[in-house]
Amino acid sequence: MSDTHQQSSHPPQGSPRRRVLIVGGVAGGASCATRLRRLDEAAEIVLFDRGPYVSFANCGLPYHVGNVIADEEKLLVASPETFRQRFNVGVHTESEVTVIDRATRLITVRDLRTGAERQEPYDVLVLAPGAAPIRPPLPGIELPGVFAVRSIPDTRRIRAWIETHQAKTAVVVGGGFIGLEMVENLVHRELSVTVVEKLPQLMPPLDPEMAVPVTEHLQARGVELRLGDGLARIEAAGGARLRVISESGTQSPADLVILAIGVRPETALAQNAGLQIGARGGIVVDEQMRTADPHIWAVGDAVEVRDVLTGQETMLPLAGPANRQGRIAAECIAGRPTRFRGVQATAVVGVLGMTIASTGASEKGLRRAGMTAFQKVYLHPGHHAGYYPGARPIHLKLLFSVPEGRILGAQGAGTEGVEKRIDVIATAIQFGGTVHDLAEAELCYAPQFGAAKDPVNLAGMIAQNALSGDMPLAEWEQLGRTDALLLDVREPDEFAAGHIPSAINLPLSQLRQRYTELPRQREIWISCGVGQRAYYATRFLAQHGYQPRNLSGGYTTYRALKLADLVP
Amino acid sequence: MSDTHQQSSHPPQGSPRRRVLIVGGVAGGASCATRLRRLDEAAEIVLFDRGPYVSFANCGLPYHVGNVIADEEKLLVASPETFRQRFNVGVHTESEVTVIDRATRLITVRDLRTGAERQEPYDVLVLAPGAAPIRPPLPGIELPGVFAVRSIPDTRRIRAWIETHQAKTAVVVGGGFIGLEMVENLVHRELSVTVVEKLPQLMPPLDPEMAVPVTEHLQARGVELRLGDGLARIEAAGGARLRVISESGTQSPADLVILAIGVRPETALAQNAGLQIGARGGIVVDEQMRTADPHIWAVGDAVEVRDVLTGQETMLPLAGPANRQGRIAAECIAGRPTRFRGVQATAVVGVLGMTIASTGASEKGLRRAGMTAFQKVYLHPGHHAGYYPGARPIHLKLLFSVPEGRILGAQGAGTEGVEKRIDVIATAIQFGGTVHDLAEAELCYAPQFGAAKDPVNLAGMIAQNALSGDMPLAEWEQLGRTDALLLDVREPDEFAAGHIPSAINLPLSQLRQRYTELPRQREIWISCGVGQRAYYATRFLAQHGYQPRNLSGGYTTYRALKLADLVP
Repeated sequence: MSDTHQQSSHPPQGSPRRRVLIVGGVAGGASCATRLRRLDEAAEIVLFDRGPYVSFANCGLPYHVGNVIADEEKLLVASPETFRQRFNVGVHTESEVTVIDRATRLITVRDLRTGAERQEPYDVLVLAPGAAPIRPPLPGIELPGVFAVRSIPDTRRIRAWIETHQAKTAVVVGGGFIGLEMVENLVHRELSVTVVEKLPQLMPPLDPEMAVPVTEHLQARGVELRLGDGLARIEAAGGARLRVISESGTQSPADLVILAIGVRPETALAQNAGLQIGARGGIVVDEQMRTADPHIWAVGDAVEVRDVLTGQETMLPLAGPANRQGRIAAECIAGRPTRFRGVQATAVVGVLGMTIASTGASEKGLRRAGMTAFQKVYLHPGHHAGYYPGARPIHLKLLFSVPEGRILGAQGAGTEGVEKRIDVIATAIQFGGTVHDLAEAELCYAPQFGAAKDPVNLAGMIAQNALSGDMPLAEWEQLGRTDALLLDVREPDEFAAGHIPSAINLPLSQLRQRYTELPRQREIWISCGVGQRAYYATRFLAQHGYQPRNLSGGYTTYRALKLADLVP
Repeated sequence: MSDTHQQSSHPPQGSPRRRVLIVGGVAGGASCATRLRRLDEAAEIVLFDRGPYVSFANCGLPYHVGNVIADEEKLLVASPETFRQRFNVGVHTESEVTVIDRATRLITVRDLRTGAERQEPYDVLVLAPGAAPIRPPLPGIELPGVFAVRSIPDTRRIRAWIETHQAKTAVVVGGGFIGLEMVENLVHRELSVTVVEKLPQLMPPLDPEMAVPVTEHLQARGVELRLGDGLARIEAAGGARLRVISESGTQSPADLVILAIGVRPETALAQNAGLQIGARGGIVVDEQMRTADPHIWAVGDAVEVRDVLTGQETMLPLAGPANRQGRIAAECIAGRPTRFRGVQATAVVGVLGMTIASTGASEKGLRRAGMTAFQKVYLHPGHHAGYYPGARPIHLKLLFSVPEGRILGAQGAGTEGVEKRIDVIATAIQFGGTVHDLAEAELCYAPQFGAAKDPVNLAGMIAQNALSGDMPLAEWEQLGRTDALLLDVREPDEFAAGHIPSAINLPLSQLRQRYTELPRQREIWISCGVGQRAYYATRFLAQHGYQPRNLSGGYTTYRALKLADLVP
């Protein structure tokens, strides 16, 4: 952008106060307003929101439905009065901004209570309109009892519906973050819940095998899952009852239906003003969160951001990045040279005692981005030292570049300590760290918190062993096609309880005596329960002139891959 | 070292198998043995340990005393049989290595069961002797009922003593990691516990004010604390009972006494062999964990390591670094060019529901190292979003260099989520990260796990504000000496419930109306409850031509500093 443009949004001293209007008053918009006030007492700052509230905790909405957050007031982080009193920020709720006239720098605002329209001039405009739940145009989608979860009025309606109709059954359409949070909360209210998900897995951001633990966990808790089976239509079934019909024709009765299919960025206002919309459907901004119009910034769920792992543009409708973007827009508006570093898609969801978290790219995300120079390892360590009671497994997958070993992504599932490990790996990714860095990380250890070799260290060490050639990896994907010998080094009783088809059993405890029984001229793909004994066997056989490879994560990973239909 | 030296520990192919002897078979020694086997099937590897067990979980010993780990077997990570069978590593327990003859490369081993001595030749020797609990030569220190906690026989004796004498009261001498873990476990066994600590604070690695939450927590749980009062002597008090007399003359009855004063590296063997002992009392090694003798490595609690924050040598008797060192020694012995990156002193302890964790340097550690170009911020955020029920405060202190903002250390105390934040900051320190990096970290957020601005982000942002001059910090240490106006911007009811002496009250909610009441020519040191409102007030006043400074962490930090006697 030219100097003239820059100056035009920073009027010289003595000129009339700069007028900054912000469209959308939740995470990104509210952060922008308050940060800008802390940097610039002189500017006039005004927030507009279509809804009745600003700065509410939208991530808390499912928990309000579930009565975990019983009091609606708790969701109101800051009232319009707080904005005025603390920050001298004007707030107009139930005020929809309908038109941006960029030439005259005027927006049209409609008061939704009266229908009256007015125009407001701006020097700087910040768009933080968010994203709206997708409501596919399917039969019955607008029936009473079908809800999305975006706003406080939404949760109020859902709560009223559950109470009025004494709802006992619910169908949640969509098995992603919001869908699973709704499952947790509806189960918490003792409803019988069915999840209908078009993809053949829950938690679409994860690789399919990493979603298996949550699939099994929900099934064990009585949640019915229809995976690989999209919503076809919804029918009235008498009284207030509904019937949900999936694409396969399966019918599910429901006292209410929650649509949690995903969100669509609210870009109409920007698009109608001629601002660029990117290939992923979001408003295009630069690293300072500014659109091509030097007077207009955009932040939050409606903008496209750069994924630092793949280098591609993406949509990431999460509160953390939205807050960060609002802050950065404010700093840039105030003339500070800040940049948004992009996103790495760190996310977590808790559902009925299980935690699923991820950071960076998934394997399918890497493939989608055309990246192939990577490897992956699986591990299933306890969340703390095994000798201390109560250790629970964390199922981890680590993706890293070859040959550099740069960390590309990690996914974890388990009941304890999952998000801690993902946060540590997220931090390493932020610094462009490698698996060697993970191996060397010096983390908190006492028996109830971790292990002398923390799961993060182990992930790094296993990846190091793969990278260095100490432990060549076999490709799980080739399991049905390989002519390698499949060797299971667990004890016979473990082997008998379940093993990879066509594997033979030679326990690690007998390997030093019996290894000459194995073929030297054929690859040997080794597995055990989780990978540790197979690693020992791999090292032993490699040093004795055999050709071993490791089936990373062992039989535990095999089971997940099998349940995800990724191996025969 | 010379090429000749390097070659001497890597005999050419065809020469007799290299003989690697390892003295000490717990964390560092056991890790070294098994890692070396995975890299070198040809070497002969033999472990010697003075005790009856190798590879036991010494970090679990306090919990075995407490019956939390009821079964002693759980502490045995790997038996001698496992070492033989899996790793072809010879193990000699109850075998003390008494002499190293470096010229002839022979060690003398005494069989502690028979008293017989023999000599064993080595090509490579690894010293992993650990550290022994300090037993100061005070009267009564050898009385029956006075115990240290280093080995499984120790815990067996303590458990037997508690049961035989139906112990009801205990004195723990030393309020550091092991001391507090023993407190937890003795309380768990329903003993009344008194802690005698010579320093005026618990948890000596922490700065005093950061130990206050655990002090208050223990007192609330009925633990008696004698701080700033060392052990003077122990007397027999009839039957099996003891009486502990502190330096102040205070007497505490005790059915048993636990010595947890600290540990002293076991360096006699190395020293007698003429190996260098450093200023901190540990065996001196290079980055490959090798002593000046090219045939001798040393790892674990007995060696001096470099503190990456201060650049100084230090002793850090923790299991994580010991394991890492054992692994690195093995790699170097196997001819791989690995280096130990030093330590950053990440540590955690849990005691009666409270977690205390730290990484990097403390403020007193920085001062001891002669470093002065740093600042510190305090914060007290909830461990997850405040709108979700059950948020508990984490008390955090972040130290960073000025003007670069490089993270130097962090300390945290609270009941939930403490070690997660310290692990994230530890990871940032590993990469030489700055407070700006913490502000930008993209961490897991869902209401029950964190916040859109995670405590780690907040710590970074607050430090950024201090560094940038947006929020100049007042020095707590100057509180009694400053002529600044002390301004408390909380609401009147909060102010009335307790405030910094001589502070005046002008609530943030009235500041925009009443700020002209404040003096322009005098510094104004602003505080609130935890720092947020004071920050808003600071920004407002700074932009209106006042001279505000922020008392970081507000009244919550003031209370801790006051209880630690650091402010008037």
